[in-house]
Amino acid sequence: MEVLSEHRAFGGKQGFYRHASTSCNGSMKFSLYQPPQAEAGKVPVLLYLSGLTCTEETFMIKAGAQRLASELGMMLVTCDTSPRDAAVAGESDSWDFGLAAGFYLDATQAPWSTAYNMYSYVVKELPAVLAANFPAADLDRMGLFGHSMGGHGALTIGLKHPEQFKSVSAFAPIVAPSQCPWGVKAFTGYLGADQSAWAAYDATSLVAKQQHPQTILIDQGTSDKFWVEQLKTELFVEACQKAGQAVSVNLRDGYDHGYYFISSYIDDHLRHHAGILKG
Amino acid sequence: MEVLSEHRAFGGKQGFYRHASTSCNGSMKFSLYQPPQAEAGKVPVLLYLSGLTCTEETFMIKAGAQRLASELGMMLVTCDTSPRDAAVAGESDSWDFGLAAGFYLDATQAPWSTAYNMYSYVVKELPAVLAANFPAADLDRMGLFGHSMGGHGALTIGLKHPEQFKSVSAFAPIVAPSQCPWGVKAFTGYLGADQSAWAAYDATSLVAKQQHPQTILIDQGTSDKFWVEQLKTELFVEACQKAGQAVSVNLRDGYDHGYYFISSYIDDHLRHHAGILKG
Repeated sequence: MEVLSEHRAFGGKQGFYRHASTSCNGSMKFSLYQPPQAEAGKVPVLLYLSGLTCTEETFMIKAGAQRLASELGMMLVTCDTSPRDAAVAGESDSWDFGLAAGFYLDATQAPWSTAYNMYSYVVKELPAVLAANFPAADLDRMGLFGHSMGGHGALTIGLKHPEQFKSVSAFAPIVAPSQCPWGVKAFTGYLGADQSAWAAYDATSLVAKQQHPQTILIDQGTSDKFWVEQLKTELFVEACQKAGQAVSVNLRDGYDHGYYFISSYIDDHLRHHAGILKG
Repeated sequence: MEVLSEHRAFGGKQGFYRHASTSCNGSMKFSLYQPPQAEAGKVPVLLYLSGLTCTEETFMIKAGAQRLASELGMMLVTCDTSPRDAAVAGESDSWDFGLAAGFYLDATQAPWSTAYNMYSYVVKELPAVLAANFPAADLDRMGLFGHSMGGHGALTIGLKHPEQFKSVSAFAPIVAPSQCPWGVKAFTGYLGADQSAWAAYDATSLVAKQQHPQTILIDQGTSDKFWVEQLKTELFVEACQKAGQAVSVNLRDGYDHGYYFISSYIDDHLRHHAGILKG
């Protein structure tokens, strides 16, 4: 693992790192905030998955999460949103498919399946890199959250791996990718036209079969221009109610899809995770 | 004035605006955060001046200031770092002169003097735009702060206009531009080779003649790679001591020049200004 840069922040350390990834067939970057408490021992790890067009840097510069993470003693980690170094033909043709749009799944279709395996990257490869390089990272106390496409990632991966990700939350998540344009485009490309393969990566389908023992926290702005067509919060809430999955949805009046919304409620999410991981 | 975008944030409103500027000979953008208290009446205004390469957006996305501004009931304003719309020949040749490097002065040399008048813009034109468009902005309770080149702007303009800017602070300011490479290059270009014209825009020279009635707060990271050659905090401190200007300098161990440093101490600066403006 290569250190790209490190910056003192809130008494801890904000770093950017690069490593060789087999899941993503090339080098991958991630960012990590170590709170001051990481100098004295293990701390819980909160992994954030970003949305379309973002990188490993976006959350760390825009969300304002380090302040409270420093107080609570939580490590923050953000990965990139797709492979970046695999040179897959056509990957830069769309803003919502390919580069910066990995959708946190393992692709089964050529040519994507050689590199677009962000699901394996998040569940296995990145945690192994953390274990090898950051002894303060307590991987037995990991939480998972994300925004938009990354909210989809957090919900699906959290539902599949409740033992690994003990707390889950999302900002403005895509909750039913099989039923919205972004998701249909991504799933068709990465997983193929046969929709039977899609359910494994669709939170609204998944929750019928696999629940998380903890309440899932969701914040959604009511002035989010993607809410009705792409995000469809209500479909997940209905599915949770049927399945008996505890979910807490806060509709935030007048807030949009961006990081001014996220930063306004980031403290609530950190406290949600801390309550479970440190409780 | 044109509204470019507005976003709900921390119960208030984060906006981006554009207006025609005579000082800068073309259109100029600025950003402004209105805390929730602005709906009920006038609130103090805290104007932030950014550093080299920044825009009116940088502080608002990276500093994490809105959270506490919302609590304290302070309006935040950031302007751009140079004219953007004047098409002055050669203005994009250097990263540290011309575009994004206006140095908060009024240029006297051709061709810069037609547009590079950020001093007048900050002192007169922008406050007039605020008065005309944001009735909640209490211009009798304005504070001024900034970073690096913008710290230079805050110190010089604050010393010259203590009646207008009742509180002053800076992050990693250029305190003696006449004695550092960035400043010498900028002042030679904008003000000419005759150094007698430079003192009016040099905080270390200015403070000998004009003091501010309030303590000036400065935070400076000790791992800031520009500290020794460009920033030279100690020259200003010495000059303040000679002149009887109260100054409070916090050297922050291990912090660098970037926004992870600023965000770590932004709350201290907001409280410094609130203590004076709301005291």
